Formats: sequence, C-alpha cells, structure tokens
Amino acid sequence: MSAKPRNLSPRNLSVSGPRIAADIDALARLTDPDRPWTRRAFTPRFLEGRTWVAEAMRRAGLETRIDAAGNLIGRRAGRDPAKGVIAIGSHSDTVPDGGRFDGIAGVVAGLEIARALADRGIALDHDFEVIDCLAEEVSIFGVSCIGSRAIAGVLPADWLDRIAADKTLRAGIAEVGGAPDRLAEAKREDIRAFLELHIEQGPVLEAERIDVGVVTAISGITRIEIEVDGRADHAGTTPMGRRADALVAASVIVGAVERLATERAARGEGHFAATVGEFRIEPNAANVVPSHARLLIDARAERRPAMDGFLHDISALAGEGVRGLPAPPRLRVVSDNPPTPSDPRLLAEIEAAADGLGISHRRMASGAGHDMAFFARVAPAAMVFVPCRDGRSHAPDEWAETDALALGTEVLLETVLRLDRAATGKDAAAEGAQT
Amino acid sequence: MSAKPRNLSPRNLSVSGPRIAADIDALARLTDPDRPWTRRAFTPRFLEGRTWVAEAMRRAGLETRIDAAGNLIGRRAGRDPAKGVIAIGSHSDTVPDGGRFDGIAGVVAGLEIARALADRGIALDHDFEVIDCLAEEVSIFGVSCIGSRAIAGVLPADWLDRIAADKTLRAGIAEVGGAPDRLAEAKREDIRAFLELHIEQGPVLEAERIDVGVVTAISGITRIEIEVDGRADHAGTTPMGRRADALVAASVIVGAVERLATERAARGEGHFAATVGEFRIEPNAANVVPSHARLLIDARAERRPAMDGFLHDISALAGEGVRGLPAPPRLRVVSDNPPTPSDPRLLAEIEAAADGLGISHRRMASGAGHDMAFFARVAPAAMVFVPCRDGRSHAPDEWAETDALALGTEVLLETVLRLDRAATGKDAAAEGAQT
Repeated sequence: MSAKPRNLSPRNLSVSGPRIAADIDALARLTDPDRPWTRRAFTPRFLEGRTWVAEAMRRAGLETRIDAAGNLIGRRAGRDPAKGVIAIGSHSDTVPDGGRFDGIAGVVAGLEIARALADRGIALDHDFEVIDCLAEEVSIFGVSCIGSRAIAGVLPADWLDRIAADKTLRAGIAEVGGAPDRLAEAKREDIRAFLELHIEQGPVLEAERIDVGVVTAISGITRIEIEVDGRADHAGTTPMGRRADALVAASVIVGAVERLATERAARGEGHFAATVGEFRIEPNAANVVPSHARLLIDARAERRPAMDGFLHDISALAGEGVRGLPAPPRLRVVSDNPPTPSDPRLLAEIEAAADGLGISHRRMASGAGHDMAFFARVAPAAMVFVPCRDGRSHAPDEWAETDALALGTEVLLETVLRLDRAATGKDAAAEGAQT
Repeated sequence: MSAKPRNLSPRNLSVSGPRIAADIDALARLTDPDRPWTRRAFTPRFLEGRTWVAEAMRRAGLETRIDAAGNLIGRRAGRDPAKGVIAIGSHSDTVPDGGRFDGIAGVVAGLEIARALADRGIALDHDFEVIDCLAEEVSIFGVSCIGSRAIAGVLPADWLDRIAADKTLRAGIAEVGGAPDRLAEAKREDIRAFLELHIEQGPVLEAERIDVGVVTAISGITRIEIEVDGRADHAGTTPMGRRADALVAASVIVGAVERLATERAARGEGHFAATVGEFRIEPNAANVVPSHARLLIDARAERRPAMDGFLHDISALAGEGVRGLPAPPRLRVVSDNPPTPSDPRLLAEIEAAADGLGISHRRMASGAGHDMAFFARVAPAAMVFVPCRDGRSHAPDEWAETDALALGTEVLLETVLRLDRAATGKDAAAEGAQT
C-alpha cells in the first residue's frame, strides 16, 4: 500500500472524467427499460450496446473488427507491429438488473485511453487494442467468459451446441458477428500485455480511502454441493425426538461454512470467503418435516493451500454425519478453478505508474472472476480495481464515482506508456507532454 | 394407557378384516395411475371414488345423499329419529402421492360398522350415518376441510369464489353434487356423537405396541412466518466480516426452533412439535450473499399455554435481532388455531368399549388436523387412532395392517352400541350376540 498522499486532482489528468462519465451514461441508456441496467449477451439490447461501442471505438481512432469468437476489437496500429499488442479490455454485457459499471468501466477505460493517446498525439511502438470480450457474465447459455476463453484457446467446442432461447451458442456467436466454425482463429499469441480495469465489487478500497487496487490474483473458485437426506414425516404427528429433519441438519452446515470461512479469512493466508448462495429444501411444504436439502457453497481463495484446507474441513464435517440422519450428507466438488496470479512485472509497472502519478494504491486479490483470468493463460496480464459505493455490484445501485474511474484509467494509461517505453528503451517524454 | 394384555384375536371380531381390506384395495385402485395413491378432491378420479363409496354405502344398507356442501352421507334410520344421529366419518380424498389409508380408513370403518350392524340385525334407536366429508386435505383451492367446515357452519362464504383449474370452489362443490347456493343447509345440529377412526400418522402406537389411540385433542396449529432481511453482496469480493447474510441468520433461527420445540415437548405439557417446513432464500444465486430468507414455522400444541410460551420464546429470539443484520427479523403469526379437545364422555365410552373388548389403548393428542375438529363445534366428537407403519403418512408407503384397522373399527362399533344404549338405558345385549 502506498502511504503517499494523493497530490493529483482529477483536473490534472490526461484522461477526461467527463468523457468517461458520458460513455457510461450512454451505455446505461441501452438497457431493458423495465429492469435497469440490463444488457445481457445474445439479446437485441446487447447488439445495440455493441453498435454503440464500435462507433465509439472508431471515433477514438480505432479500427474495429469482430473476431471469430464474437469479441469486438478496436485497434490502433503501432510503429513496430513485430512488437505485438498491448491490450485493454473488459466486457459490455451485464447481469440481469445490474451492471452499470461492471465490465463497462473497463471497456470505457480502454476507449478513453485511446482518445487520450490521440489527444496527445502519441504513437506507440506496440499495436494497441481495446477488447470488448463476449459474454463475460454467466449468459443465457449458462456459461461465462465465452470470448476470453476463446482468446485463451480453451472454449470447449461442445459448448457451441448449448441451447437457450431457441438457439445454439454457435448461432449466438454468429449473430454478434463471430465465425464459430473458425473459433480457433480467435486464440491470441500476439498479446504482450493485457490490462483490465474493473470496479472492485467489494467494500475495501472505499473503506480504506484508497484510489486503486492492484490486483495480485484472481481468486480460485471452488463450488461444493452438499445434499442432505432426511425423512419426510408429518410435521404435526412426529415427535421431535423421532425426526430426521434435513433442514435442521443443513442449517448446522450453513453455520459451519460461515464459521470455517471466517476463521480462515482471519489467518493471513490471503483473501478467503465462502458463501452458501444456493439453498433449497424438499418437499418445502408447511406440514412436512423436510426430507432433503441441497446447498451450494461458493468458496474463493487467493492461495490454493487455503482452499485445500477448507475442503478438508468441510469434508470432515460432512463425513461425521449429523445426529438423527439416516446417512451422512453427500458432498461433491462441482467445479474447482485454481487462483490466477497476475504477471509480476505488470504489477510492478502499475505500481510504478501510480506512484509516479501520486495515486494511492494497495495490493489486493480479486474475489470475483474476470476475463483477465483467461488472458493470463496466453499473455502477461494484470488488473486494477477502482472503488465502488458500498461494495455493491450485480445490482441496480452499483455505482462508481467518475473521479475514481478517471484515476484508475490514468494509471492504466501511464502503465501502457511505461510498457511501451520499457520494451523499446525510449523515453516516452519525447512523445508528448507528461504531467 | 391400558396395561391389560389383548385377549382378542381378529377372528373373534364382529367386524370383518377381509371386508375392510377389500374396501381399502378397491379405493386404492381408483388412483391416478402414475402417482399412487392420488385421488384429489375436485378431480375426475375423486368422483370415481365417490361413486364407489356411494355404491358401497347402499350395499351396506345405507340410504345415500349428498348434502349442500358436497358431503356424501349414508344413512340408516333409527327407531327413534328424535334421538338424533350417531355419525362415523372421515374423507375419501387424498393428498398428491399419498393417502392409501389417510381418511379412507375412517370411511371404510363406517361402512364396515354399517355392515356389522346389518349382519347382526341390530336396530339402533339413533339414526346412524357414515359421512364422507368433502376435501379434508388441502385441495386445489388451497384450503382444507371444506365439507366439515360447512357441517359446522363455518365455511367462509367468500371461499366459494376461490379459483383453481379454471373453476370456482362453488362450481367444484356443484360438480360433486352439492348445492353451494344453499350452503347453510349443510350445517348440522342433529348429531349427538361424531366418531372418526384414522391412522395415527405418527410412530407412537407402533413403537409402544398399543392397539388403539384414544385421541384427547386435536392439537392447535399455529403458523408463524419469519422474514429475514440481509444484504445482497458479491460472494467473492465481500469480506466475511462485512456481510449481512440472511441465510446464516435464518439458519440460526431454524436451529432455535428445533431446540425450543424439543425442550418444550420434553416438559410434560402434552404434545408439542414445531417444524420449519417452508424455507427459501433470495436471490438464491451461487455467487451472491443471500439477501432475504423466509421461513414458515408449523407449531402444534395439545395445550394452549405451551403454544403461548413458544410464541413468546420465538418472538424474543427474533426481537433480539441477529448480529450483522440491518434490522431484526420480522415475525408474523399467519394463522392460529387453538386445540380442540375431544368430548370427555365419548372418550370414556371409547375406553370402556376397548376395555370390554380387551383391546389395548392409550390417550394421545392428534398432531394433525382432522374433520373431527369441525364436528366438535356442533356435536360431541372424538377420534380413535390405529397404528401405521413407521409413522409414515402423506406418502406412497403409508400403510396400516388390516388387523389394526379391524381392532379400531371394532372399538368404534362397540362405542356406537354403548352410546345408543346409554341414551336409552336399554341393554344392547338384547339386540344381538356379544363377545
């Protein structure tokens, strides 16, 4: 964490807060009117948003194309194409009822960096790209990060046959302008740095009054399903001592998940959180003792050993069984993705950029998944977070201040310049006025 | 509880086990074929059942009619109509997927008593009726005990406008042969005793190897809704200590309900049970901290002070609030029905009848609601329970042994004879051979 007081007012930035705010507003207007702010991938509203982003890219001097996976890419050619690409990206799709900033902020940061480069007449050696990744959020097809998975070359081919809203994902990708039959062409090997700006979606930066989070890792996400079998008895006639109540047993597990996660988060093993987000019982009838409960644990760890420890604890808990139940709860790891560390050199460049600008920062893990996690498979990649109000996200009241977005964008702009310079050894000061 | 060993084998009974078993089987065959044993009120399958019951009543020498509320009544005139009616009743409708015995056993007991009276050439002074009450189970219209409520004169008039399956309850009652516009005519003031046989729907008689439960009361049922408001935060990004997790809080309440009910049931204040049967959370999404939980407590008490104490304890628990939540949980008593005691004289007659037959019995409360609770508003009423397997009910594996049904039916037959005698002072032995 930088202890240096911020000595920069938004007015002195190379990037423009008002332009950023105008872009955010323009995209916010392209929402399903009855449920702001909704622009889900593979819907007509999403295509309206894409048309707007593509036009904004062109106004910012970028050449646009849509890759085989349906990613929208705005490109500004560098002086030395052999050097490869420095890319800024995120996504313009949203979750239902949320997403005024989630994803959008990162796309707009890319647009603003392109405009700032143009304003200042800076020619980079590297090609510069802004990438609006297709369908980062869990889409109607039930899967997420479709575009960035394809860029990493890891989009499973059989996902193309998934069906939602009477169409296949294959058809959905074609509708947005992709070429699903040539999906392999979307894989990138020419990206030398990928940077993503995102709202934190958590309360830490706001609470600590820090301008920018330098993201050390995307936490690993492990989803654990637990099913509890009891016995459906009549709620009125079955004495308390003769029951096998699946809800009572599942409630004990919910409490244990919260306790184990809280203890682990306090141990200094990096970010750790666990949540029972899905929970249902059967038969869910007023006068029947619940016979079955299913719960889904979402656990996130910055470091893998913490997740291994949590899995061990939860398995032991389930294995012990619960008094009165005919069998121990059944535990199944539904998905298990390891943490993705950011590129150390990019982290250092981001911190150096922020320090040079007098912008306060701290290292932190991302508890949420992001496109960056897939870019990291094929390129050096890193993220910056900006504060958001009350840590709220995926909700209509998701909010980030324009000044906060501008500071984060300025850090990324400076990082791009440093990366371009570092690779060439040139002094970027020769290319334009520096603050 | 009678400590007397049973000295009666089913072969010596006045009632016929094989006839009872044949009736149960015949009705079981009238089920929705894909989900035995289902014969829900207001469905074509129910009308098939009703046709069968009416024919069985006529074969047993009863005159049949359908009252204004759609109750099917089989009547055997007594020698002195001024004495009023002794009635045996229950219901032939079922819950979905259950109900081979629930209700049916009581209707069949009535049929068998009519046949046994005819076999033995017994003429009662009282009119004798077998009543198949309409829609005791929660029907497609969302309400229960439609027929017996009407007999008690307490069926709310506005319920007739309830709509399900594209028809009103009014039309539903007309379809089964009732006259919903003359509903008041269904109210009875001529019943001098109402007796209902039912499977216990609990495990006590089976576990204690007792033939018959003499039901002291229908437990009061109080339904309490608790709503817990937390805050929807991102499951990955919100540190454990900064959450307001509605599911974690609701789980604590589920545990407390079970603990408080178990303690109260152990206090010797009569039957007490409490169950959280309905439970749901919002948004119920894997990656969102639950913002809301709703739970519905079903509490049953044989004695009102126990329920008052439980309500006090639960209200205090909710009032204390839960650490981390923005507001205390909201508690609402959704419905609150007091216990219905059985008629003491009928209890004594049932016990005397069982003792005379050498049939073991114990007093117990009914945790479940029954038609008897409504008859008790207009007539002396009581119930007997017979054991059922594993206490299972409202499920396809609901089961009662034919011998158990026969013993319970024999007790009711003897009780009918005693009541008829008691009212006249005659010696029933003059009317037929007694064992």
